[in-house]
Order: sequence, then structure tokens, then C-alpha cells
Amino acid sequence: MKIGVLGTGVVGETIGSKLVQLGHEVRMGSRQAGNEKARAWAESVGGAASEGSFADAAAHGELVFNCTPGAHSLEALEAAGRDNLARKVLVDVANPLDFSTGGPTLSVCNTDSVGEQIQRAFPDALVVKALNTINCDVMVDPAAVPGEHDVFVCGDDDDAKQQVVELLRSFGWPAARIRDLGGIASSRGTEMYLIFWLKLMSALGTPHFNVAVLRG
Amino acid sequence: MKIGVLGTGVVGETIGSKLVQLGHEVRMGSRQAGNEKARAWAESVGGAASEGSFADAAAHGELVFNCTPGAHSLEALEAAGRDNLARKVLVDVANPLDFSTGGPTLSVCNTDSVGEQIQRAFPDALVVKALNTINCDVMVDPAAVPGEHDVFVCGDDDDAKQQVVELLRSFGWPAARIRDLGGIASSRGTEMYLIFWLKLMSALGTPHFNVAVLRG
Repeated sequence: MKIGVLGTGVVGETIGSKLVQLGHEVRMGSRQAGNEKARAWAESVGGAASEGSFADAAAHGELVFNCTPGAHSLEALEAAGRDNLARKVLVDVANPLDFSTGGPTLSVCNTDSVGEQIQRAFPDALVVKALNTINCDVMVDPAAVPGEHDVFVCGDDDDAKQQVVELLRSFGWPAARIRDLGGIASSRGTEMYLIFWLKLMSALGTPHFNVAVLRG
Repeated sequence: MKIGVLGTGVVGETIGSKLVQLGHEVRMGSRQAGNEKARAWAESVGGAASEGSFADAAAHGELVFNCTPGAHSLEALEAAGRDNLARKVLVDVANPLDFSTGGPTLSVCNTDSVGEQIQRAFPDALVVKALNTINCDVMVDPAAVPGEHDVFVCGDDDDAKQQVVELLRSFGWPAARIRDLGGIASSRGTEMYLIFWLKLMSALGTPHFNVAVLRG
């Protein structure tokens, strides 16, 4: 499958590399084609990896990952281009973390979320929020945390969610641990969870953890 | 132990009843002594249960539970009286849930929390945030959700936290599943988690669930 990955940070790199390992053709997108980090990534990964502008990556992808920082995602997606995203599954991994005021705080929360903002701004894209509740090493390798633990998806389009569920299964997530939280408005929950996640990370001394949901 | 429980809702009732079962003398506090729900509760529970004003309950308690709605907790605690709370462990179970705008949203979050507000307003109280991440049936009976799962405490005073940990152990929580998230500022995390919790409750169709933290 041809996949665009927007963002050159560690999340974009980790997801991009996993997708290439799984046999997908991945183009990493950044503000400007030729970005140094994106080129280094594409070279290190080899054959099926390439890089380009946000628009290049979105046009390349049959499915697109948003791995840009949440506070800048709308801008990055505008640059990617409305037409390049239309009728495509857009997996939104972004969190609106803001460390500028000492925080961390979220640049949007409570009455809105990045996932909702993106779906509103790009009504023709099929936005699925996923993977934003875990460190990227765990995203692409759930076995990095022993035991069974959970990943969450939400979005307004059921077929799009199903495609993302299949992709997550190919990452190693058992079907029973991929929890559907409903429509894209549930992004508000998984994004606000991040502040809790950060407190847990401090307490545990590692980002390599996750939660399992147990039911009564 | 003499314990004050502020609030006559289902959380206050459930925690109050459990405390009486465990042999404590519990006074439930409300805006005005003689509150119908508080009287009905005290009668149904029997001997070691009594009721009174917020101030009566706080004066009675060597330790005090805040089970009032988060958006009204400061007001309830003002009525309880600064002197009646001074140098006492104040277990804050409140969540600032606001359903007034269709939400749910939180009436305070991101840059502040109920736990922090209370500690700032009552600097002589030893505020420990705990139990606000689970349904009250699970709070007092962790076995209501099969398997091992977690409860979180945070607060600025280590001895106060230790007292709360012991109380939680008497509720049935295993020591290893009581996670210390540090100072009271971590309330921001456990309160913002509530929006995620509500989405999970919708998806699972029951409030009887909890999360277990797994570490890599």
C-alpha cells in the first residue's frame, strides 16, 4: 500500500519505518521537500521509503498518517492540500502538547480536540484518531510492554476505522485489545488522557508502559 | 477512626457505608444538618453513622472525605470551615464534571484542577487526591472488576498519602496496585482522565471497569 507520513519527528520516523518493514511504500512529508531529517530517514530505511513536501506525501498516500505536533497539524494539513486528503483515511496520531508555559498543557482540550478540528477542517477526509495514547516504540511493537494492553480508535467513518484496525493488527495489536471509542469526538478523551499519561510516565520512570482496560 | 464524609450523593453514601462496615464512626455532612438523604443514609446504615452540616462532619472527622461535586467543592469546604480541616488528611474524590453545556466538560482543567484549588485554598489541610478515576462501586470493592487494576493517589504530604494508602488497602486494594503519582499537581492528570473514562464507559456499556498499568 502507498502511505504518506506527515511529520519528521520520532513518531513519524518510527511509524514510517514499521510501515516499510511491513512492505508498504512510504513517503515522509515535511514543510519542504529535501528536509534533512526526512532524507536521512529515507536513506537509512532504503528502497520503499521516500520523502517530499507535505503535499507530495499526501498525494502519494492511499492512506495518510498525521504525525505532526497537534498544535501545528491544521497548518501542516493545509499545506498537504485538501484534494490530496479527500476520501482518504487520515490516521491522526497527534497530541496538542504545549510545553511553552512550563506545563505541559494541551493547546486545545475540554470543548474540542485536534481530531475534531481536523475532521471539521477537512470534511472530505476520513479521520481516525489512533495510537496517540502510547509511546511510539509501543505503537509499532505492543510486545515492548509485556501482557495484554489496549489501543483506542475513534472516528466517524466505520470503514475507515476498520482499515486502521487492520493496520494496527499488522503492527501486532490483538483484535480484542483494539477498542473502538465511537465517533471522532472521543478524541477529546484520548487527547486529555495525555496529561494523565505524562504523570504516569514520571511516576514509572519510563515511557514504555500502557494501560489495559478490565471490565466488571 | 472518626471520619467525616462531605456530600450526600452516591459516592459519599458508598464510601460512608464502606467506612462504617470497616468499623469507623462516620458523619455525613451536607449544606444543612437534617438533610433528608443524609438522614436516610444514617438510618439505613445504623449505629456508627450520623449526619450533620458540612462543619459538623468536618469537626467530627480525624480524616475527611470530599465527595461533593468538583465544581462546588470549594464552597462546601468553606462551609466545613478552615479550622475543622486544619492538619487533617482531606481525601479529595471530586471531579469537576459539568453537564450543563451538553458536554460533559470539566469546569476546571489543563492549567489547574480541583485538587490543586483545594490545597491552595486550604493550605493547612493535607489534601490527597484519590479514587476519582473509578466508579464508586469499584472504589470500595476492587473485586467488582476481576483481575488486578490500579488506583492512583497524589498529594504534597507523604504521611497523609500513606494514611490514605492504608485506608485503600482496607478497602481491598493490593499495595502494588496503589500508584503514587507524586504531588497534588498530578490531580490535573487524574481529573482530565475522566473525559477518557466517560468515553470508555460509553464504549463498554458499564461504569464497572478500570485500567491496569503495565510496564515495559
